[in-house]
Amino acid sequence: MNLRIPGPTPCPPEVLQALSRPMINHRGPEFATLLARCTEHLQPAFQTSADIMILTSSGTGAMEAAVTNTLSPGDEVLGISIGYFGERFCDIAAAYGATVHRYTVAHGLAADPEQVGRLLREHPSVKAVLVTHNETSTGVTNDLKAIADVVREAGPLLLVDAISSLSSLPIEMDAWGLDLVLSASQKGWMVPPGLAFVGVSPRAWSVMEDARMPRYYFDLRMAKEYATKGQTPATPALSLFFALDVAFDFLEKEGWPGIYDRHRQIGEYTRSGLRNLGLELFADPKHASNTVTTVTLPSGVSEAELLKTLRERYGIVVAGGQGSMAGTMLRIGHLGMVSQSDITALLDALRVELGDRRVSTPAQAARS
Amino acid sequence: MNLRIPGPTPCPPEVLQALSRPMINHRGPEFATLLARCTEHLQPAFQTSADIMILTSSGTGAMEAAVTNTLSPGDEVLGISIGYFGERFCDIAAAYGATVHRYTVAHGLAADPEQVGRLLREHPSVKAVLVTHNETSTGVTNDLKAIADVVREAGPLLLVDAISSLSSLPIEMDAWGLDLVLSASQKGWMVPPGLAFVGVSPRAWSVMEDARMPRYYFDLRMAKEYATKGQTPATPALSLFFALDVAFDFLEKEGWPGIYDRHRQIGEYTRSGLRNLGLELFADPKHASNTVTTVTLPSGVSEAELLKTLRERYGIVVAGGQGSMAGTMLRIGHLGMVSQSDITALLDALRVELGDRRVSTPAQAARS
Repeated sequence: MNLRIPGPTPCPPEVLQALSRPMINHRGPEFATLLARCTEHLQPAFQTSADIMILTSSGTGAMEAAVTNTLSPGDEVLGISIGYFGERFCDIAAAYGATVHRYTVAHGLAADPEQVGRLLREHPSVKAVLVTHNETSTGVTNDLKAIADVVREAGPLLLVDAISSLSSLPIEMDAWGLDLVLSASQKGWMVPPGLAFVGVSPRAWSVMEDARMPRYYFDLRMAKEYATKGQTPATPALSLFFALDVAFDFLEKEGWPGIYDRHRQIGEYTRSGLRNLGLELFADPKHASNTVTTVTLPSGVSEAELLKTLRERYGIVVAGGQGSMAGTMLRIGHLGMVSQSDITALLDALRVELGDRRVSTPAQAARS
Repeated sequence: MNLRIPGPTPCPPEVLQALSRPMINHRGPEFATLLARCTEHLQPAFQTSADIMILTSSGTGAMEAAVTNTLSPGDEVLGISIGYFGERFCDIAAAYGATVHRYTVAHGLAADPEQVGRLLREHPSVKAVLVTHNETSTGVTNDLKAIADVVREAGPLLLVDAISSLSSLPIEMDAWGLDLVLSASQKGWMVPPGLAFVGVSPRAWSVMEDARMPRYYFDLRMAKEYATKGQTPATPALSLFFALDVAFDFLEKEGWPGIYDRHRQIGEYTRSGLRNLGLELFADPKHASNTVTTVTLPSGVSEAELLKTLRERYGIVVAGGQGSMAGTMLRIGHLGMVSQSDITALLDALRVELGDRRVSTPAQAARS
């Protein structure tokens, strides 16, 4: 199966094989070494010397951790939403009692850093800015460095959902002054879902003392306390740690600059291939993501039917629209273990299927 | 390695192998079937026809879900604590703003159902009772049915941490009137850690409408909404679902009555073997757990050193004391994939090591 959704991503066979290792004591010396080693290997991808906490949860759990560990009920936050996952970040903050000022950008566009600056001047009490680096629902990558420059000057914390960018797109946690940076195992890391990573700046640690939103499972200070003993507060998903440990071999052999280059190239290849089929790209070309590409479906094409045909006839799995965009698009993942031939196979299939449909006879159109 | 801790437990090779399956679309038809099938196979172990939600987290996440989905800040709860995990349940409720009346039982003893009744009469506003079915820190199993009888008569909700009992010890969610029942994959299920299971009674669903504790990642109503579409709100730990699916084959082939019998027999075998070595069992014999046995260390024996010797010389991994009991005991897990010979190996090792130490020369004693 050619799994071309924006996560979970395909995993190298050696990574999958590592999942099968027998269980160990999660409070013994072997796990302590494993936890320390994984943390060390995460740091270069985050471009940070700060702590990175590894949580047993989906990426959404890390988003909740970012919010609840740094804020108090009633705190004002600026939520930059360019799609489904931006909304989710805002929703989490609102669920825990933050007053959320939403900067909602039309789907397909990136946030405007200048507008972020204006909104921060308009709401000087904002304690934290929530931003999605790479929005998989729309296939757009925000200009995180420019946004971070504006936020840093204004003063609030910057909480970054980098779940679908980190390990595929360059991000510099320390140099850009990011306070909390989140990722998750099933993206560019080429590991199955179930682990989330939270990079925590020294400033983020210091504000936690006063943050009063309730938290327990996702309490980062508790995670740090246990990490110093080589443990996690609750039982960790050991198999996924085994897999992550092996995935680093592949990531580091290719090297981070090479990985970023490959994602840039494959992003361009995907977009140009789709354009050559006469298809309409959904994302603003200036901010098109190099981990996921979105295509607006030609009118009369059923998303559900096309997904089914691609899966059943070609063994290619892509994603459809999310949230309010359901039914209107294809979302094509090209992050982690992906090569040009994976995309070529999809382009070939789309050429056959959408070509057919565009010149469909009335009988065929009635069937679709 | 003979892994004899109270979870993670050893997994059958076929279960470990299933972890290596390639990733699938978590929003596609294959996962929908898998999710439905796992849920169906969980119900007989819970002895329920109610919904069971599967979360990507440790068991502690399920404890947080139980609390935050049914209660509001300021609500009074009765927390029955017979050890480390009972304290954790109370701590979670307190972290989210509940007023927790703690019924703290001396370590090694079970809760007294009559005392639970008295406390509920003393605190008539209590909305929920939190109880640990099987406390792995002390090796004690509470008389859950008797406690449930008392709670049901008084009226509050009953939230049950059955993490280390369910799938090893009999529990009847519907017949006993339990409202929320929690378990986790790395216990008797013989699956690696990372999935938690929450059985939800109709009464528990109905109180959620009014429960105002904040929640997002662990929002059970959102989980149910997605489950009806064959999905989970956030990306699930797919590999662990693959493993669980295979583990059911083993569990159901042996059958639940047979599994309970085996755990009863192995519990008795472990306790009598330890007694025969002249060792002091920590738990009240009337309530000794059939999934974990605790032994008080003879004076002069270092817990850390004994754990190390067992691991390095015999390839046997057992756990030491937890929380305030650290350094004072061994905790021996015998749940899930365990046979008499696993325990015999441990008893033989203890005979050599503790026998040696008891008649140790002054030079040896000084070294330890």
